[in-house]
Amino acid sequence: AAVTPLSLYNGLPVQQAHPARLPPLLGTGDSVGVTLIATDTTVEIANGVQYNAWTFNGTVPGPVLHVRQGQTVNVTFVNRGHMPHSIDFHAAEVAPSVAYRTIAVGETLQFSFLARTAGAFVYHCGTPPVLLHMGNGMYGVIIVDPATPLPPADVSYVLLESEWYTQHAGGTVMNGDYAKMLAGTPDEMVFNGEAFQYNDQPLTARTGQRVRWYVLNAGPNRTSAFHVIGSMFAAVYPDGDAAHALTGVSTYVIGPGQGVVLDTIMRESGDYPFVDHSMRAMTMGAVGTLRVGPA
Amino acid sequence: AAVTPLSLYNGLPVQQAHPARLPPLLGTGDSVGVTLIATDTTVEIANGVQYNAWTFNGTVPGPVLHVRQGQTVNVTFVNRGHMPHSIDFHAAEVAPSVAYRTIAVGETLQFSFLARTAGAFVYHCGTPPVLLHMGNGMYGVIIVDPATPLPPADVSYVLLESEWYTQHAGGTVMNGDYAKMLAGTPDEMVFNGEAFQYNDQPLTARTGQRVRWYVLNAGPNRTSAFHVIGSMFAAVYPDGDAAHALTGVSTYVIGPGQGVVLDTIMRESGDYPFVDHSMRAMTMGAVGTLRVGPA
Amino acid sequence: AAVTPLSLYNGLPVQQAHPARLPPLLGTGDSVGVTLIATDTTVEIANGVQYNAWTFNGTVPGPVLHVRQGQTVNVTFVNRGHMPHSIDFHAAEVAPSVAYRTIAVGETLQFSFLARTAGAFVYHCGTPPVLLHMGNGMYGVIIVDPATPLPPADVSYVLLESEWYTQHAGGTVMNGDYAKMLAGTPDEMVFNGEAFQYNDQPLTARTGQRVRWYVLNAGPNRTSAFHVIGSMFAAVYPDGDAAHALTGVSTYVIGPGQGVVLDTIMRESGDYPFVDHSMRAMTMGAVGTLRVGPA
Ligand SMILES: [Cu+2]
Ligand SMILES: [Cu+2]
Ligand SMILES: [Cu+2]
Ligand SMILES: [Cu+2]
Ligand SMILES: [Cu+2]
Ligand SMILES: [Cu+2]
Ligand code: NA
Ligand code: NA
Ligand code: NA
Ligand code: NA
Ligand code: NA
Ligand code: NA
Ligand SMILES: [Zn+2]
Ligand SMILES: [Zn+2]
Ligand SMILES: [Zn+2]
Ligand SMILES: [Zn+2]
Ligand SMILES: [Zn+2]
Ligand SMILES: [Zn+2]
Ligand SMILES: [Zn+2]
Ligand SMILES: [Zn+2]
Ligand SMILES: [Zn+2]
Repeated sequence: AAVTPLSLYNGLPVQQAHPARLPPLLGTGDSVGVTLIATDTTVEIANGVQYNAWTFNGTVPGPVLHVRQGQTVNVTFVNRGHMPHSIDFHAAEVAPSVAYRTIAVGETLQFSFLARTAGAFVYHCGTPPVLLHMGNGMYGVIIVDPATPLPPADVSYVLLESEWYTQHAGGTVMNGDYAKMLAGTPDEMVFNGEAFQYNDQPLTARTGQRVRWYVLNAGPNRTSAFHVIGSMFAAVYPDGDAAHALTGVSTYVIGPGQGVVLDTIMRESGDYPFVDHSMRAMTMGAVGTLRVGPA
Repeated sequence: AAVTPLSLYNGLPVQQAHPARLPPLLGTGDSVGVTLIATDTTVEIANGVQYNAWTFNGTVPGPVLHVRQGQTVNVTFVNRGHMPHSIDFHAAEVAPSVAYRTIAVGETLQFSFLARTAGAFVYHCGTPPVLLHMGNGMYGVIIVDPATPLPPADVSYVLLESEWYTQHAGGTVMNGDYAKMLAGTPDEMVFNGEAFQYNDQPLTARTGQRVRWYVLNAGPNRTSAFHVIGSMFAAVYPDGDAAHALTGVSTYVIGPGQGVVLDTIMRESGDYPFVDHSMRAMTMGAVGTLRVGPA
Repeated sequence: AAVTPLSLYNGLPVQQAHPARLPPLLGTGDSVGVTLIATDTTVEIANGVQYNAWTFNGTVPGPVLHVRQGQTVNVTFVNRGHMPHSIDFHAAEVAPSVAYRTIAVGETLQFSFLARTAGAFVYHCGTPPVLLHMGNGMYGVIIVDPATPLPPADVSYVLLESEWYTQHAGGTVMNGDYAKMLAGTPDEMVFNGEAFQYNDQPLTARTGQRVRWYVLNAGPNRTSAFHVIGSMFAAVYPDGDAAHALTGVSTYVIGPGQGVVLDTIMRESGDYPFVDHSMRAMTMGAVGTLRVGPA
């Protein structure tokens, strides 16, 4: 039988999960700086299973960037990988033929953009074949806080779903499989890069807290459906704007390249699994746990 | 060639379709009681074709539950199947680690929840692998009427779309095929459990009537797109709230685990097919007929 | 290896792309007439690659029809193909068993409908198996301008995404492959019928202009996700109604059979690729370019 990452998965708890908590703003001034470095790295995609990835800053996903609407983001993009790469921010409005141009190994690219639009946005490499660059891990999240704030949240998490398409490289290491990427037949689907990690290291909250979920889908291919078991989305902000919120929603569709902001408020202590409700996605890794303690 | 349920389908009209009409409220008081019993049963998935299913109350889908916002739902869940099972209501806000816990064969579980949120919600078994339990038929619908009513409807139907993944058990009987469930390659896609049934036993309405469609997707895997041929959704309530309605929509996407409420008003007598507009889904069974007679 | 349309693709620039610009209204009076003729034709699905298609008026997609809300559309449908066909307008509210009935080769069908609802709608053949008729190219777009206008646009484009499922007919010619249609495994995904055509013949606009995108998905099977690289949707009209607009959206999901209206305003000159952000779709042809020049 074919060696898949889940056949190599050791089933033990991960010792450290990728950070999911929304980090602080990059800065409070009119502009913030961010440096993203393309590097090839081996990452963990399930406990005990590695993948020879192409990354931003050495992790998959890359770092979560947090800015506020109206700030200028000064980007420095450095290519320390082994092939040409580029960077595309869904939060930006810039000419891709200029700002998102592909640079050679060793080169640096600088550009700035104004974060005009609030919301949850992916960034990713846009060098052809984009399917391969994204399939190999070149994506991350930028959160733009609205100038008119949403209702204040007590705790905020960022979850970026994506797919892994693999072939066996040897031992416990996988490589990308472009034929599977083209066919759309993933071997894993994960939140923040690694299968099942938040079952082992649960996200946490307390009863009565407003938990804000920034949920995005890097694909590269699939449409997902986000649901928190035992809970209801008190608000869904399809465009990050409180005036357009839906209320009382159980499950929300998120296409590849899309992001959405959703709020939950748990009333009972306990463990609440969050899933891509496409059950094969959950089975292949797109599931975690929010552990809710007493207020 | 492989034996599939549609290769066994006898093509004759089904004599009795699964009920699609929204049933009355379970009760009008402050609380209602519901008993759901997990049982293994052979069900019909196309005329002349059976499936060895895991069910709630002996049918796939399980019974439609109809309550109103603000009622307390007292649930009794009994496991008379052959393996551990559980029950998860998308309408509820409860700690899954308590209310949705898996019980052994022969056991009974009781819990209550307040129907805080209006809308159309799935319920389903949540025992791992959920993909297998849902793939084998363990799902149903609960409708929660809003405290502030939607515009009154003249006739209301509930349609739960789902997929069947099969292997031949012998004769005209199929079993579930977990490898197909994992691969996301269904052999049938159906409304309310059985292919083509509402072409044979059409739903009915009259011209000028407001027909309310509660349409849900149990998956377990696919995103669907609901459309009524020859008609327009006068209103789409993405979250069951009239204040957030869209108007004049032809086709609406419904992810796995999601439900939506939609209204049509036909002006001409005739037959109106309703479909999952993913045409392979329609071809594999996700199509029925609304027969509209004169006012 | 199997011969696919992209293995036959010559990689040269297409000399003439299918028209994407929204054509003028069919008329300004109370009623407009339209004639659609089913004909079998060989069409180009990638440069140097042909497909033996079933069409409306000899092209895939068929002509873009542009009317305004409140107009009566008088349809004449002629079957000059080699098998029975029919015509189904998502913009219409008519009894399908009458207006959308299948007619034999050589026959003509006439019916009228009132364009009651504004928006972007597909039309298509509805003769069983619809999957095959749509898979072979029988679809097009009708745009219904709202009586209460949207904010005025400076330039308007119509993009209909669809899938091609193929087997080799010989030389550079492909036929439809019904087994692939049923399996949902396309060989190409395209805007307006032909892979990559708008990379070779870009759509155009100027900085500061409001560009209106009417984007639809004919499927026959897949859910898509529309995104314009380097840009943001200033407005998304999910139902064609300005009162229900979302603002500041990066990516929007469009199910098979669905259409949506979206606006962008580019501030910088340059090339902006538009894509189905499911990256395998982009790789298989669902990508083009908007070339933005100075104001
Ligand atoms: Cu790259
Ligand atoms: Cu992108
Ligand atoms: Cu079970
Ligand atoms: Cu669920
Ligand atoms: Cu036809
Ligand atoms: Cu249609
Ligand atoms: Na690990
Ligand atoms: Na709701
Ligand atoms: Na039967
Ligand atoms: Na509309
Ligand atoms: Na050509
Ligand atoms: Na926004
Ligand atoms: Zn890790
Ligand atoms: Zn890259
Ligand atoms: Zn609401
Ligand atoms: Zn039945
Ligand atoms: Zn179960
Ligand atoms: Zn509207
Ligand atoms: Zn052409
Ligand atoms: Zn046709
Ligand atoms: Zn907004």
